[in-house]
Amino acid sequence: MRSQLRSDLQRARDTLRLEALSDGVIAIAITLLILEIRVPDVDDASPQEVWTALRALWPQYLGYLLSFATIGIFWANHHLIFRFIARTNHYLILANLFLLLGIATIPFPTALMADTLGHPAEQVGVIVYSGWFVVCAVAFNVLWLYAVRADGLIEPDADPAALATVTRRFLLGPPAYLVAFLLAFVSPVATLLVLLGLTMTYVLPYNG
Amino acid sequence: MRSQLRSDLQRARDTLRLEALSDGVIAIAITLLILEIRVPDVDDASPQEVWTALRALWPQYLGYLLSFATIGIFWANHHLIFRFIARTNHYLILANLFLLLGIATIPFPTALMADTLGHPAEQVGVIVYSGWFVVCAVAFNVLWLYAVRADGLIEPDADPAALATVTRRFLLGPPAYLVAFLLAFVSPVATLLVLLGLTMTYVLPYNG
Amino acid sequence: MRSQLRSDLQRARDTLRLEALSDGVIAIAITLLILEIRVPDVDDASPQEVWTALRALWPQYLGYLLSFATIGIFWANHHLIFRFIARTNHYLILANLFLLLGIATIPFPTALMADTLGHPAEQVGVIVYSGWFVVCAVAFNVLWLYAVRADGLIEPDADPAALATVTRRFLLGPPAYLVAFLLAFVSPVATLLVLLGLTMTYVLPYNG
Amino acid sequence: MRSQLRSDLQRARDTLRLEALSDGVIAIAITLLILEIRVPDVDDASPQEVWTALRALWPQYLGYLLSFATIGIFWANHHLIFRFIARTNHYLILANLFLLLGIATIPFPTALMADTLGHPAEQVGVIVYSGWFVVCAVAFNVLWLYAVRADGLIEPDADPAALATVTRRFLLGPPAYLVAFLLAFVSPVATLLVLLGLTMTYVLPYNG
Repeated sequence: MRSQLRSDLQRARDTLRLEALSDGVIAIAITLLILEIRVPDVDDASPQEVWTALRALWPQYLGYLLSFATIGIFWANHHLIFRFIARTNHYLILANLFLLLGIATIPFPTALMADTLGHPAEQVGVIVYSGWFVVCAVAFNVLWLYAVRADGLIEPDADPAALATVTRRFLLGPPAYLVAFLLAFVSPVATLLVLLGLTMTYVLPYNG
Repeated sequence: MRSQLRSDLQRARDTLRLEALSDGVIAIAITLLILEIRVPDVDDASPQEVWTALRALWPQYLGYLLSFATIGIFWANHHLIFRFIARTNHYLILANLFLLLGIATIPFPTALMADTLGHPAEQVGVIVYSGWFVVCAVAFNVLWLYAVRADGLIEPDADPAALATVTRRFLLGPPAYLVAFLLAFVSPVATLLVLLGLTMTYVLPYNG
Repeated sequence: MRSQLRSDLQRARDTLRLEALSDGVIAIAITLLILEIRVPDVDDASPQEVWTALRALWPQYLGYLLSFATIGIFWANHHLIFRFIARTNHYLILANLFLLLGIATIPFPTALMADTLGHPAEQVGVIVYSGWFVVCAVAFNVLWLYAVRADGLIEPDADPAALATVTRRFLLGPPAYLVAFLLAFVSPVATLLVLLGLTMTYVLPYNG
Repeated sequence: MRSQLRSDLQRARDTLRLEALSDGVIAIAITLLILEIRVPDVDDASPQEVWTALRALWPQYLGYLLSFATIGIFWANHHLIFRFIARTNHYLILANLFLLLGIATIPFPTALMADTLGHPAEQVGVIVYSGWFVVCAVAFNVLWLYAVRADGLIEPDADPAALATVTRRFLLGPPAYLVAFLLAFVSPVATLLVLLGLTMTYVLPYNG
């Protein structure tokens, strides 16, 4: 029994470090977003001018909130699937690093989108921003579908119906973000509304 | 017994990752604050000029200390309530992400406050800064009150009197920060004194 | 039995903190890389001009991907060897800090390489970049060879053949990066191809 | 027995979160140091000019190495004392936050010291830099002496001789850094040599 428990601890350690790196990268990416909102130059500005400058930062606030919410949901999904994943292997580590690459990069398209919003190149910013979320959604599916199909990575007692629900939900991600991405070629504002809507659907209860 | 222990470990892992993300975000937010204090340009400056330039950074030091202390207290409170919270669910994760949004944003109002202090728009900076702490205090209460009222999230053996003490203390937060915020419309200096005072009250022993 | 388990937990904690610091430093270094890619100035730029500016950032993207992949592989290797290392001591902590110094520094040569690529000093950037990877590969071998040879740091039940495989693989690192480094004096492009090739070899399955 | 083990786990969690926050802050502070070394502007520079510019960054490299080594040693000491500390309380959390404030601030005096080195205000930079290490060394002693004297924070089975050795070693820190600080008023170079020497003494084996 002790050796059983010990091997439980060992196994827990195996996925724990992968989760620790992921939590670290996600926590940093989500917190670095604030560095992209620069305080306006206020040395000799009147109070009214500073309020105006703060209001002019609305594209930055919008990008911050949208990316914070999206990364937060990515984390919650990562948390969810690693309750089912009991072991790691070489390819799971690779797939997880690919997902982390997607998440760690988000501050760049976020800043590009916020900087172009309301400017002539607005559409470029929104295309890159929503396109990057397609990449992240695909990376999530690669990770999860590999974990489910590979041999012996999933917790043996996991409920197959619960696994199927996760798979069903995840497979909705890429087409949903693809729609948002394609819409950007027609109307960048519509894309942003769809992205906001997608974060809102997450707030609905998860009744798998 | 083994399966009992195993489920204990599983449960611990459940909240541990939420705590890990939170510790990560809090650690980064508290450490990024120093990046807002920029070293003055010293290439050809005399020693006397550099001392003067360093003294002129006092609003930056004040903002750094106040925000560091406040985020530190937020962490200690988060640590405190997760000694009572044994399980997570969908809404607890959402409430926690909302709180992390509040904390991760703090470097921005801190920099704004520090940059405006001693300048014409000082009041704007202090209003935004103290107003943001109201948001954080509300987010803390949302998280805690939800955890206490939801079904089965609190450790079953938790002492009800201890829970009530935490609730009582937390409910003091929003009105206290609201007073500081409202004072800013009259006297920004008074607001800063109240905020300093609020961090000082935490130093008092916790005799729940 | 309880005290045995307790000492297991204690021992786990011993290496866990070293792993936690390492995961933290690696997660931050890998995520800070994105800060080096600055959004082009887009205020009045036409969509076409912004696309052109984004394309002109290709050296930055290349440096980002190459350093992300390399740090990711470093993390995977660190993860691998700490499945064998059961205890820490003074010198292991020092060797690990030396390795973390190597990894934490990577954003600097990455930015230098990306900034010089396509410019007159391209060779300087690639020499420094590939030279730094030699340092990191040596640091990895110092850490691992010390752990294997020191008394009582390796998990007693570890399979000696598995240990020998890790040693064999690790010893390939310094000469491989040295070749890439020396090539830079002849052809910086050849160095970058070798570095890309080295990250690709990692994608091959690990059949120790 | 199960409840005993469970309370062991609970206790471990208690200090683990404090260690997690500390590891996070230390990992971030140590990794942010590299952001202070800015890549020289290389757009049209010849290879020779870039080598010269890289050599001119030697004060930045020196500050980076010295602060990295010092923070690394701080982490190792934190790791050491938390092998003896089994529980936290209100004042231990406060003392630890005070220490983290000291460590998180280090990037600022490091950048100031590096920027002033070789410039007229060199002495100012070295005074502030070494003075800040005195603050950190005092914070370490406050944390440790409180933990040792407070009721029930130390692991009950801890060897009193080992505790006394730690205390003896820690008490050497403040006077040693104070000597380095005072020397800066006479010779900044001497201060830097003493600081380098202090990190070197740590490399010596710990034979408590």
